[in-house]
Amino acid sequence: MDAAAVAWEAGKPLVIEEVEVSPPQKDEVRVKILFTSLCHTDVYFWEAKGQTPVFPRILGHEAGGIVESVGEGVTDLKPGDHVLPVFTGECKECPHCLSEESNMCDLLRINTDRGVMLHDGKARFSIDGKPIYHFLGTSTFSEYTVVHIGCLAKISPEAPLDKVCIMSCGFSTGFGATVNVAKPKKGHTVAIFGLGAVGLAAAEGARVSGASRIIGVDLVSSRFEQAKKFGVTEFVNPKDHNRPVQEVIVEMTNGGVDRSVECTGNIQAMISAFECVHDGWGVAVLVGVPSKDDAFKTHPVNFLNERTLKGTFFGNYKPRTDLPSVVERYMNKEIELEKFITHEVSFNDINKAFEYMLKGVSLRCIIRMDA
Amino acid sequence: MDAAAVAWEAGKPLVIEEVEVSPPQKDEVRVKILFTSLCHTDVYFWEAKGQTPVFPRILGHEAGGIVESVGEGVTDLKPGDHVLPVFTGECKECPHCLSEESNMCDLLRINTDRGVMLHDGKARFSIDGKPIYHFLGTSTFSEYTVVHIGCLAKISPEAPLDKVCIMSCGFSTGFGATVNVAKPKKGHTVAIFGLGAVGLAAAEGARVSGASRIIGVDLVSSRFEQAKKFGVTEFVNPKDHNRPVQEVIVEMTNGGVDRSVECTGNIQAMISAFECVHDGWGVAVLVGVPSKDDAFKTHPVNFLNERTLKGTFFGNYKPRTDLPSVVERYMNKEIELEKFITHEVSFNDINKAFEYMLKGVSLRCIIRMDA
Repeated sequence: MDAAAVAWEAGKPLVIEEVEVSPPQKDEVRVKILFTSLCHTDVYFWEAKGQTPVFPRILGHEAGGIVESVGEGVTDLKPGDHVLPVFTGECKECPHCLSEESNMCDLLRINTDRGVMLHDGKARFSIDGKPIYHFLGTSTFSEYTVVHIGCLAKISPEAPLDKVCIMSCGFSTGFGATVNVAKPKKGHTVAIFGLGAVGLAAAEGARVSGASRIIGVDLVSSRFEQAKKFGVTEFVNPKDHNRPVQEVIVEMTNGGVDRSVECTGNIQAMISAFECVHDGWGVAVLVGVPSKDDAFKTHPVNFLNERTLKGTFFGNYKPRTDLPSVVERYMNKEIELEKFITHEVSFNDINKAFEYMLKGVSLRCIIRMDA
Repeated sequence: MDAAAVAWEAGKPLVIEEVEVSPPQKDEVRVKILFTSLCHTDVYFWEAKGQTPVFPRILGHEAGGIVESVGEGVTDLKPGDHVLPVFTGECKECPHCLSEESNMCDLLRINTDRGVMLHDGKARFSIDGKPIYHFLGTSTFSEYTVVHIGCLAKISPEAPLDKVCIMSCGFSTGFGATVNVAKPKKGHTVAIFGLGAVGLAAAEGARVSGASRIIGVDLVSSRFEQAKKFGVTEFVNPKDHNRPVQEVIVEMTNGGVDRSVECTGNIQAMISAFECVHDGWGVAVLVGVPSKDDAFKTHPVNFLNERTLKGTFFGNYKPRTDLPSVVERYMNKEIELEKFITHEVSFNDINKAFEYMLKGVSLRCIIRMDA
């Protein structure tokens, strides 16, 4: 019996329970989680305001751990390997995995409704024989969890799991959006919409790419001070202007930024992020997840004047193939992770991590499973 | 005194007149036109239904000629050089010209309203001392014309001007949209919206790129037979289906095409061209010019699922830097131009070229200046 933080119902504090964690089945791996962190997506599905509620459930998807045992057919991982569980996967066989350009695996692409394992449609967690459902195939708010082999990135055993655990979702999503998709060149100007953890990771991507100006856009002006640590050089609050923020940015940059990255999911911010890039070469990248009834709307001449609009998912990283090298960039001191980690709590205090996020005071709060 | 076809007023047949063509001024070149062809843009501005009418005017912008004399400061060209005049230019000094990614020169970018030369704001054509206005800086419906040095591509003297003249606009616009912007890989599926000359040049780009399937989309089914010569393997007429054509294409291709190129300018076709590309890696390219009140509208999740939408102008070719090598590709028999040339008339019969285009029977009609 192992401890797990169970979400029994929407919006109610998680309860640390003793759960049964079944052995891994075919293509599955049982992982001992050492550190996990809290991401907005956990909170969103815990609140269950917009989606089909799936409860009781073990949330959590940003984490670092060590392989405890492997199921049938697993040859790429063995007990003792250090891994990052990822909310999306890489089967290495489908058209997406075989394409150099996509990371949207047909088999293991994110599925927020599924609460069971693919192999047999059952949960690996139970209390008194009753199933406790999975979340995003990771369920890292647990001392032990069972994950499909395709959703585990094997990383260097030298990497500190209490830091690199944040690379399993938020950091890589923002950082990859910039370095893999927007691809700013040295000296470029970059606008980042939304200065939460994902936006700041996008800014970190612009910083390491050698951007000359990084313009942060956010509705909360107090975020600018913190953002400076992430390379943000200028700040624009759309509320301070009585014209569209894209016009302000175009004026500040003599025609538009070279690249923009949208990390809020707000449809108006998406349109602004596109319309603020320079004609001839500007590239805008959408990261934030929109509401289901939103419509992206712009004049088509904005495209014809040689602007590009792309979306990205998990920073275009293939979890198994690419994450190990992102961890290496941290080990080589190219990427700074410490500044993202503003809080730390013990597993027993996991609900405090939710409080920090809901109050907007944390970027990332690390939850130590051993404490 | 030299012969030119003057458009005296909107929609009225051109009249061959004796015009005075002044010597080239600073940064200008006087060119003897040998062959010119007719493009829809000439017809559009001749009809003058939507724009500010500029008359009397000498139309024409797709042509091949030989330098007759050069003005002050011109060192890149000398009398006898073979050139293609281009409706947009390359000053080689502005941020766009200095960017590897843009061809939208700040100085010489297309300007449909200007009827005079940049140097002194005057026309180089006159009859009895009264100005006859320029069109797109090229005015190739004339035995001699004066063009800014930045709007002339110097090409191999070996290239047959009666063929490569069509590379000065329509062909390069479509071909470049595919090879420079959509960039299909060998074996890719490509959808082409609109099977006029530009769309067929886009198909030619897909053919030389090694596309495995080229799906032509057009409202006129009779165009399919001709399109086969350009590599189009399948045909879809949106009128034949009672659901959006993007759904038809997604079904035909098991998830969407790898690349699409939109050459109609119809806003609904633009949306279809974007929504018919595969998630994970699909790229849609807009070429056709929309109406000024059109709005491009789609669900932002279509972007987030890793689709890309880009626009292009003149196939992203920099006229002076890139066109010579496009001509070389024809000389090396990689590109086929002959199939685009469906008609040929003497200069005196230039109005017939307009008739062929208005009836929709021609792709390109070559007008021979010496005949």
